[in-house]
Amino acid sequence: MPVPVSERRTEVARAPWRDALEVIIFGVDTRAGRMFDLVLLVMILASVTVVLLESVPSLRREHAMLLRSAEWGFTALFTVEYVLRLVSARRPVRYALSFLGLIDLLAVIPAYVSLLVAGTQSLAVIRALRLLRVFRVLKLTHYVGEARVLLRALRASRPKITVFLVTVITIVVIIGALMYLVEGDASGFTSIPVSMYWAIVTLTTVGYGDIAPRTVLGRMLASVLMILGYGIIAVPTGIVSAELVRAGAGSVLHRVCPGCHADTHDGDARYCKGCGTALPDA
Amino acid sequence: MPVPVSERRTEVARAPWRDALEVIIFGVDTRAGRMFDLVLLVMILASVTVVLLESVPSLRREHAMLLRSAEWGFTALFTVEYVLRLVSARRPVRYALSFLGLIDLLAVIPAYVSLLVAGTQSLAVIRALRLLRVFRVLKLTHYVGEARVLLRALRASRPKITVFLVTVITIVVIIGALMYLVEGDASGFTSIPVSMYWAIVTLTTVGYGDIAPRTVLGRMLASVLMILGYGIIAVPTGIVSAELVRAGAGSVLHRVCPGCHADTHDGDARYCKGCGTALPDA
Amino acid sequence: MPVPVSERRTEVARAPWRDALEVIIFGVDTRAGRMFDLVLLVMILASVTVVLLESVPSLRREHAMLLRSAEWGFTALFTVEYVLRLVSARRPVRYALSFLGLIDLLAVIPAYVSLLVAGTQSLAVIRALRLLRVFRVLKLTHYVGEARVLLRALRASRPKITVFLVTVITIVVIIGALMYLVEGDASGFTSIPVSMYWAIVTLTTVGYGDIAPRTVLGRMLASVLMILGYGIIAVPTGIVSAELVRAGAGSVLHRVCPGCHADTHDGDARYCKGCGTALPDA
Amino acid sequence: MPVPVSERRTEVARAPWRDALEVIIFGVDTRAGRMFDLVLLVMILASVTVVLLESVPSLRREHAMLLRSAEWGFTALFTVEYVLRLVSARRPVRYALSFLGLIDLLAVIPAYVSLLVAGTQSLAVIRALRLLRVFRVLKLTHYVGEARVLLRALRASRPKITVFLVTVITIVVIIGALMYLVEGDASGFTSIPVSMYWAIVTLTTVGYGDIAPRTVLGRMLASVLMILGYGIIAVPTGIVSAELVRAGAGSVLHRVCPGCHADTHDGDARYCKGCGTALPDA
Repeated sequence: MPVPVSERRTEVARAPWRDALEVIIFGVDTRAGRMFDLVLLVMILASVTVVLLESVPSLRREHAMLLRSAEWGFTALFTVEYVLRLVSARRPVRYALSFLGLIDLLAVIPAYVSLLVAGTQSLAVIRALRLLRVFRVLKLTHYVGEARVLLRALRASRPKITVFLVTVITIVVIIGALMYLVEGDASGFTSIPVSMYWAIVTLTTVGYGDIAPRTVLGRMLASVLMILGYGIIAVPTGIVSAELVRAGAGSVLHRVCPGCHADTHDGDARYCKGCGTALPDA
Repeated sequence: MPVPVSERRTEVARAPWRDALEVIIFGVDTRAGRMFDLVLLVMILASVTVVLLESVPSLRREHAMLLRSAEWGFTALFTVEYVLRLVSARRPVRYALSFLGLIDLLAVIPAYVSLLVAGTQSLAVIRALRLLRVFRVLKLTHYVGEARVLLRALRASRPKITVFLVTVITIVVIIGALMYLVEGDASGFTSIPVSMYWAIVTLTTVGYGDIAPRTVLGRMLASVLMILGYGIIAVPTGIVSAELVRAGAGSVLHRVCPGCHADTHDGDARYCKGCGTALPDA
Repeated sequence: MPVPVSERRTEVARAPWRDALEVIIFGVDTRAGRMFDLVLLVMILASVTVVLLESVPSLRREHAMLLRSAEWGFTALFTVEYVLRLVSARRPVRYALSFLGLIDLLAVIPAYVSLLVAGTQSLAVIRALRLLRVFRVLKLTHYVGEARVLLRALRASRPKITVFLVTVITIVVIIGALMYLVEGDASGFTSIPVSMYWAIVTLTTVGYGDIAPRTVLGRMLASVLMILGYGIIAVPTGIVSAELVRAGAGSVLHRVCPGCHADTHDGDARYCKGCGTALPDA
Repeated sequence: MPVPVSERRTEVARAPWRDALEVIIFGVDTRAGRMFDLVLLVMILASVTVVLLESVPSLRREHAMLLRSAEWGFTALFTVEYVLRLVSARRPVRYALSFLGLIDLLAVIPAYVSLLVAGTQSLAVIRALRLLRVFRVLKLTHYVGEARVLLRALRASRPKITVFLVTVITIVVIIGALMYLVEGDASGFTSIPVSMYWAIVTLTTVGYGDIAPRTVLGRMLASVLMILGYGIIAVPTGIVSAELVRAGAGSVLHRVCPGCHADTHDGDARYCKGCGTALPDA
């Protein structure tokens, strides 16, 4: 992430080419910076595509050389990019330990590891995480704001979600054990963990059908679980909906209290709920 | 779409039969216009049904002549209709390039193309898109208004949906690659793209079961993905719900009480709920 | 349905036993009436269970006589009950043509028809519809009120749901035809109607897996459809949620306007939105 | 559950070691009490894991002795713990009959029963219910509050959910019987109960695919059921969402402004948003 302007001013002078490089690599406001991000995004997409294609047996056989070269080409480019980022960053260590910095590193490591350990080049798809950079290319702040509303809604629901998850896991263990006792090996319920896997597949309404009850009692139990899952699926949806209604209601308002600078006031509020100061009109 | 009355007045005179034709073909207010739309709708339905039936092997064998004739009959009728629309429209080019005009053209092209390229007559189902004309036959404005609320809710959620889709795609790529490494060919995970297809099938809770994990580790990963999908499915639902609550609330917001300036009245309110003053009409 | 008290007064005198019978059969306020409804409900449940059990091959073989007798016993009882209802009802024709009256008739017809047409006795499950009488036994008005809120929410959403259904059907036809062209017979897409069936199975996230795409292009199309279905499933949920929030907000309030007896006022309303009369305090 | 302090004062003196034991076993405020709960939770998790692992055939063969010993070890520990709880509790009978007390007893019974009845040791997973104790270890009151909001939302929706369930069951019976008549044995619809099982699997969008319609009419019926299920799944979600929006709103409703008597203040509001008067504490 780019160092804020105020910090840059106070630091000692650096070689001008490093400043220029920084603007290009880390900047999002200049034309060069945006162009760099865009090219980078296309290359990430291309490199992920190469990893995907290489995993297809027929393509791997026929275009082995081409795909291998392309992958090593992208690895080389990303390695150079990573080094340039380290060189041009005002605070290299901070960048290296940041979320995006760690992903940038993870994007090149699997290729080198695959030289030592065979069969691990597929791990290179980890560079798909770099696609999250797309938010930098798009109108950054807008999308970050939306992501924050989503995250705030999720975080506000955390206690409810914890209660929900513990309940789900308990149901899965109990029903899993019951189905193991009722169905047995013939229908594929070969152990309690396998039964629990089936219970999760059923409760989430995925329903592969590789394991399915065949006895009358088993099917009755499964029916209860499904109707239950039907109702249970309503709970997280309801939680997130309710939080989004609330979070969204807060986010539309843009009114800042002149007294305490709080900014989440209801639409019909005339006074700040935090300090009692009169609010400006909406 | 019909040219508004005001525009018609200012244009030069045309042959009276073209005006009459325009009223019938493009009009929705006269009895003749409504009747034309209704007959057209029935014919579209019938022609789509013919295409569907023709794709059934047994019917194709037994009623080959009948179905072929019917399809060419409908193609001829729709071609004539298209020409008449071009002739009677005040602004033929504008009509030809409009959404409905392009669909009208697309509805007849596949039949003619199938003369040149064998096996493409099934593309004639594209005329199913003409079914969207149903909204013209029904109480037009009412339904258009509802569609607009739906669209407004979707458009307002676009940034949240983009954040959501990028996250989903990233999860699908990463989980797909992991499952490919963990499960391998034996369970059907023959390449990363296939694994990604499985991840989408699982995350959306469709769960065909043609590809399903068999190893312990794979099933644990799949369970995590399903619980995740369980939570993730809550996000778009929550987004749309929240937006609809707001969009619906917004659609009745336009009336301000002359007495107390309150502006949140129900759609069916005739008096202000805050001070009892009569409200202006919606 | 019982004739309201006011109407009864104005009618001519009837034999007292018919009045007594009416109170027992149609009444819900007396102890005898409630008891009759309860016994009836148990018998309906029992008779449905008998039909279900009779369809199980092993049970049908072993307990043929028992099950047949039980079914004819229930049919006889329900026939007697139907006749008694006709006899004791103040307005027999109105009862016979009411929703519950028609169901009462439908509950006994299949058994008699099965004497003429073999293999139709399973249709006797139609008497399961009589289970809806449970709402009469439970605290009637309360549940009817809840059902009305649900129905009002659904009816208010009808235009949105129509727009939604037409869109879904159009998607199903178009995608069905495309998959038929792309996949062909090998994967089970033997005709466009079959492909449409698959599209519905996929879009609703049911996903049996009896028909599933195998080609690369088919799987890509299916993935798009699934992600689409993911988003689309959010729309009806959002619609119903938004309507329930609105309908529910109205229903908690129990305040009746002294002027026009309207009873759906917002919580913060001080004057009736229908006639402007001041409302009583909540 | 621990006896409140006020009650303890008024009771007769007990041996000091029982008081100390009570603080450790039932307390959540002291360091010893929290540590005890934490250790207990880890042991419950471990014992459930042992039961799960013992059900896996390969592990059962290879580590029979180890797993058996571990299970009996945990059973012994939980038995001792149960006895200590009885001894140290101020009101042993009340504890023994409380929800948590009954679960504590159920957690040890299956192991002893398995001495008498072979093959029942899997029932020991019932001790998974003890995992619900996790809420005691976590910030108790906070989570209990969240669970209460969830429960309140569910309870408030009970009439709507009853209406919904009765409707669903009626649909399942009717559609199940129709599919049995339409499809017959060939597709797996061997009896009405089996068809009903299929209807539940389909309506909840689980869709195993072990039973699936093959006839044209059957598939049309199934399509209607799926579209219906699509709409029906929206109802419980909408109900819970609406209730959560309200429950969430309701949980902050308890404070009335001394200035203007407004009563809809946010949970974090310190001043009335309508008139700026300081609010009483929540």
